[in-house]
Order: sequence, then C-alpha cells, then structure tokens
Amino acid sequence: MEPHRLSATEAALLIAEQKLTSEALTASCLERIEARNADVKAVVAFDRDKALSEARKRDQAPGGILNGIPFLAKDVIDTADYPTAYGSPIYTNHRPVADASVIAQMRERGSVLLGKAATAEFATRHPAEARNPLRLTHTPGGSSSGSAAAVADFMAPYAFGTQTTGSIIRPASYCGIVGYKPSFGTFSVGGVRPVSPAQDTVGLLVRSVSDAALVTFGIADLAGRAEKQPMPRFAVCRSSQWDHAHKDLRADIEALAGKLGNRRAPDVTLDADFEQTIEDQEHIFAYEVNAIAAHERATAPHLISKALTERMARGAAIDLAAFLDMQKNARAARQRVDTLFANAEILIYPATEGEAEEGIAWSGSARFCALWTLMHMPTITIPLGLGPTGMPWGVQLIARFGDDMPLLIAAEKLAKLIAR
Amino acid sequence: MEPHRLSATEAALLIAEQKLTSEALTASCLERIEARNADVKAVVAFDRDKALSEARKRDQAPGGILNGIPFLAKDVIDTADYPTAYGSPIYTNHRPVADASVIAQMRERGSVLLGKAATAEFATRHPAEARNPLRLTHTPGGSSSGSAAAVADFMAPYAFGTQTTGSIIRPASYCGIVGYKPSFGTFSVGGVRPVSPAQDTVGLLVRSVSDAALVTFGIADLAGRAEKQPMPRFAVCRSSQWDHAHKDLRADIEALAGKLGNRRAPDVTLDADFEQTIEDQEHIFAYEVNAIAAHERATAPHLISKALTERMARGAAIDLAAFLDMQKNARAARQRVDTLFANAEILIYPATEGEAEEGIAWSGSARFCALWTLMHMPTITIPLGLGPTGMPWGVQLIARFGDDMPLLIAAEKLAKLIAR
Repeated sequence: MEPHRLSATEAALLIAEQKLTSEALTASCLERIEARNADVKAVVAFDRDKALSEARKRDQAPGGILNGIPFLAKDVIDTADYPTAYGSPIYTNHRPVADASVIAQMRERGSVLLGKAATAEFATRHPAEARNPLRLTHTPGGSSSGSAAAVADFMAPYAFGTQTTGSIIRPASYCGIVGYKPSFGTFSVGGVRPVSPAQDTVGLLVRSVSDAALVTFGIADLAGRAEKQPMPRFAVCRSSQWDHAHKDLRADIEALAGKLGNRRAPDVTLDADFEQTIEDQEHIFAYEVNAIAAHERATAPHLISKALTERMARGAAIDLAAFLDMQKNARAARQRVDTLFANAEILIYPATEGEAEEGIAWSGSARFCALWTLMHMPTITIPLGLGPTGMPWGVQLIARFGDDMPLLIAAEKLAKLIAR
Repeated sequence: MEPHRLSATEAALLIAEQKLTSEALTASCLERIEARNADVKAVVAFDRDKALSEARKRDQAPGGILNGIPFLAKDVIDTADYPTAYGSPIYTNHRPVADASVIAQMRERGSVLLGKAATAEFATRHPAEARNPLRLTHTPGGSSSGSAAAVADFMAPYAFGTQTTGSIIRPASYCGIVGYKPSFGTFSVGGVRPVSPAQDTVGLLVRSVSDAALVTFGIADLAGRAEKQPMPRFAVCRSSQWDHAHKDLRADIEALAGKLGNRRAPDVTLDADFEQTIEDQEHIFAYEVNAIAAHERATAPHLISKALTERMARGAAIDLAAFLDMQKNARAARQRVDTLFANAEILIYPATEGEAEEGIAWSGSARFCALWTLMHMPTITIPLGLGPTGMPWGVQLIARFGDDMPLLIAAEKLAKLIAR
C-alpha cells in the first residue's frame, strides 16, 4: 500500500515500530498532492522542502502520540509558516505571526504540517475552487471544502476543519469520509478566524473514526476500546427537516436503525421550540458575522462576496436586545436538549439532504447540522453508502455535550455494523 | 469643566448639539494623557495627530450614536493603527493587519480611537507598569489595568477591557469607577487575543452606568429609562468567599442592603457545587491558556513570565476527559444558577476582597468574579465608598444571562441610592 493511503492510526503504529519513516509518509502525501491538486484544488499552500525537513526532524527525534503524521489545516487557521488567506481576496498572501493553538499543539505531539486547505470565504458560503475528488464536477461541500477533499483524496490522513453550522459534517458526508465536530471548545479556537463565536467549533476530517480518537484524545486503539464496551442505545431523531432528505437516504437510515435490534430506543422528535432554535441559529450567525467582519466591511467592502454582504446586512438588522434573547433561548435549549437522550445515548440523524450536487457554486444545505452546532454537542458523520447517482452520503450521530468518547465508540461500532 | 472630565453620555449630547467638537474633546483627553501618563502608565500607545485627524473627520461628517467620542482599548484587542503587544515582550511592536470587531464597530458608530491601554501579560497575571491613579504606589488591579486607570484618570471617557476571571470588575473597583462585564458574547471577541475562550468576555470601563448603556446598547438616556421602571428586587448572595472580604466592606454591603427596604429579597447562598465550580473555573482557565499559548511556549518560552509558565503547566496536567467533565458541570451550573434568582432579579455581592493593595506585583484576588464569568452572566461594579485607607471599593451586581438591560437599570438606580 502506498503510504499516503494509510490512516493516521496505521501510520503512527508503523512509524513507532520503525517500519515507516515520517519522511517517506510525508513524501508520499506530497506526491499525492502534486499529482492530484491541479484537479481537486484542495490544497492552497504547501511547501515540499519545509514539510520534508519537518518530517526528517521527527524521524531523528521522535516524540508525541502523533509523531511523524502529516496533516493539513483549513485556511481560516493561522499558520506562521504558510500564508493564511481566510478564503478571502482581502487576505491574499497574509502571513500570520503565530501558529494557531491547534497547529502548535499538533506539532507538540509530533505531527507534521503539510500546508493549508481551501476554505469558503471566511468559513461561510462563497466557495473556494476545491472539487469533490470523487467527481470533479461536484461540490465537496463547504466550508471546510479543501480539508474534506484532501483527506478523501489521500493527500493527508487528517485535516482540521471548522464548523459554525454544518461546515465539517456536510463536506465529510459529500466526500465519503468521517467528519467529527467535537463538543464546543474541545479544540482551542486560538488563532482561528472567528465567524460566529457562539458556535464556532474546530474539528476533524478523517478517513476513520479511530483517527478522530487518535488526534483528539491521543487514543491509539479505539477499536480495542470499543470492543470492550456494550453497544449503546440509539434513537432516531425526527424533525420537519426530514422532509428535505432524499427518500433513498431516509430509507438507508431506516434500514440501519432496523439492524440495531434491542439497541434501538424509541424515536425522539424535535418539538416546535427546537425548530425555532434552528431558525435562530442562522440569525445568531448573521448577527455575529456582521460584527466579526466590521473591519473588512469598512476597509474593503468591494472584496466581500455578495452572499456574505447580504448575510451581514441581515445581521445588522438584528439589535442587541433581540440577539441576547436568542442567546438566552439557546442557553435554555442546551439544557432541554438532554431530554432527547432519556432512553438513548446516541441520536441518529441525516448528515445532509442527500448526495453532493453538481457544480461548486452551492455547497449544500446545512439544515441537519445547525441545531447541534448551536447546542455545542458533539456530532460525527460516518459513510452510509451511495446515493442514486453513485455519490456517498453519511449518517450523523449525536451525543450529549461532553460525551465525545461515548460518541466515538458508538461511531466505531456503528461503522462496523454498516460494513457488515 | 474640562472636556476630558465629561462622561461619554454628556459629551455625546454636547457634540450632537454642536456645543462641543470632537476635536476639542479629543485634544483634551490627549492633553490629559500627556500630563499624567508618565506617572499612571495607563496608555501604552497613542498618536496625537492620528486621533485629532480622526476627530476632525467626525466633526465634518457626523454620524453614529457615539459620534466624536474618544476611547481606548486594552492592548489584547487588535488595532491596525497601533501596535498591539498583548502585554508580552514576544509581541513588542507587533502590528495586526486588521482592527478587532469592537474597534471597527465603535468606529462605525462614530467613536474615535485614542490608542491602547496597558494589559497584564496576555490578559493573565504578570502585570503591566500601570498604576492606580488614585494612589500611584498601588495596583490598579488587572488584567485590564490600563483601561481602568486611564478611565479613572479622565484620559478617556470609556475603554474596552476583557474579563476571563475578574479582569474588568476588579480594576474598576480598585480605581473607583464602573466596570461592566456583559453577558458572554455581547461584544464580539473577533480580533481579541483569547485566554480561555470558554469565558473570555469583552466589556467596559466607564465612569457612569449610563455610559455602559450608551456604548453597549446605544441608549443615550439610561437615567430617564430607569426612572420609569420600578425598583427591582435584590438579594445578597452569600458564599464561603465572604470570609475573605474586609469586614468594613462587608459592613458597607450590609448597610446598602439595609437601605433597600421591601426591595430586598431573602439572601441566597452558593452551595457546595457552586463553590466547586469556582475551583473548576481556574482549572478551565489553565487548560485553555495552555492551549492558547502553545505557539509562544514552543517558540519563545524564555519570554513568558514564571506565573504564566506555571499556570500552563497546571493546565497541561489536565487531560481532555477531565476538561470536558468540568465543561459539562459548568454547562449544568449555568442552568442551576437561575435558581438563585427565584425571588430577586439582581444579586448583590462584593466586587473584590477590599481596597487595592500597595505595589503592582499582585493585582488582587478575583474570587468574587470567577463564578459569574464562567456562568456567562452579566455583572457590573459600582463604587460603594472608601475603605479604611481611603481607597475605593465597589459593590458587584449580577443578573441572569441576557438580562443586561435590567442589570444596567438596577445599577443606575442603586448608584443613585448610594449617592443619597
């Protein structure tokens, strides 16, 4: 197997056993980028010499749970070694003075930064040039488009993304990989361009659930842990959003739930208050992004996309009292959401409406993600098969705030069940 | 009266009535800085020509609720016009490429940036050179030391500070002014150096409650609004922390509570779980600041203070599972804290242990602030008189999350009662 096809967990073991060098692995990932990036356009900055030099250092002085493992970071995450443009022409060639927290922390753990992955404008909607590697005519989803496309295309075993509505779960689902949005605040937002700080969450694009556990918790054998745990109870979560899911996706999820036997708890339903919270999520986003981009709006309005300009205008129309009311309601809903878990540890929900669409102008609906992001709950999408046109889709699993390890274990077990 | 002695509310009215120019007001503030800053050391960067030029523009093309009003910003808040050193020698002469959200937003509202105010290292503990303007041998408190000292010394009518434990309330109390920490997320944290994102809050140092309402809500007549409202009910909040408050401060608060008559509700008491949450607050801080400063720790450890280095080491010893457990408990406590408001809209609590101490090495205890900051609740301190050595202290008022307007109205009414 070419090294770039290895998962982070597999590669870490081989490197620890000295059966693989970080240099060889990094070189293989770089070759993949060089071979494919002209088509996929997932990586917006990389430097072969720099990455290989860093990899050799890891070979010479190993240390850390991620020793020698290459990674990419969405280009809203500051890097001192690479330009960071936040997906905006305003910041072309901008070079931050410091690495973001997650970059510095992964390096502390031995990981090797390969470069930067394409992002939609300021992690919002106006898309990057990145393509879905499974079908280059199609969107990879957004806003973590480059991170998802790169990992799906074996350019790196893992990449950081960010999610403020559905920007990790959606592209992961569209690209047929695993997307993990941890509990709010799990990874530090230090040095990450904010969008809506009430809900901005740093997370991972990976090709296996195990890799999410490795990078997040430093756990090298999730599969072993999962085997020792009983199967959790799952409940399918219903909402009016389901009307927008493709009928075949709905059928796939019903079929999966049917396989759960006595580990399936009664379905739960999002009531009208939660549906209102889903609407508030976008208003909170608009209010906050209008504040976040106040400098750019004042100094370079002509370089801001129409979509973002309109969204900011919607945010500007919301006054502080209304914003605080929505935040109060969200705070109350964060407690009330636990009632959905009365009979189950894990909720099952679509990740997207369906397959990735053709074209890259529209990165797809985030309707199945908005609530969980605002509620700060950990969610993960794992591949659930292919839709009618042959593109992948995922199933989303959701756990209570802070229950990230139970979520990862559940996802590992469910992925096995799906593969059976 | 010299213009620099005007409150923001007073000055805004005079400017709107064309009885005062922004240029005259700004010049007066600059003269005050020039006369006093060698002693007070509150302002770390300012530029007379730049500020006056900005003020003249406001006079020529007025607009915005804060038209022509000068302000300062704590030096953890990015400014493109002024260096931003985050209180750290690592960032001496660092010049951000963009203004922080609050800077750009205040400028949108017509306010004139005067310059930057001293901050403790990365808004933590290692102090700046700023002095208490009321007694130059004494600490102004921290970490928003320069913001509090400058406003208390009439260098600017308002200044932005940040609070992650007690960094607004404490220095305001020590300097005899009003400190307002709004509900978490009220002001955007965009472009503000994070410390502990779970609790970092941008807020205000002002000389009147009215000014807090003007800058935050754009309300120019808080006093008029307050008169139309009934007096809210207040409850004194008890906790083991009170053992650390100066006996005379305790007596002053009892005396104030005694004046409330039938607007005083029965006292409430922080139970053992809340006391545990106060301890968790520091652990969450340590865990998060260890992540936040990972880059600086890797690249310039010799330029980090001993205090912060030790704090980060304590944070590094906390694993992610323990951190998530504390965050879960904090999330639950955010709901439970509402039970303290069963009979009262506003809690009364000390702001500090007592008066500012001599020397600037120790910026004072934040024990009376930690819980409310982690709980994301709005709090305000208003001056309550003088302690035994003749230095001021404040009383802290606390409201439910999102109840910022009721808090400001209550503070306005209570300030009148104290003044009687």
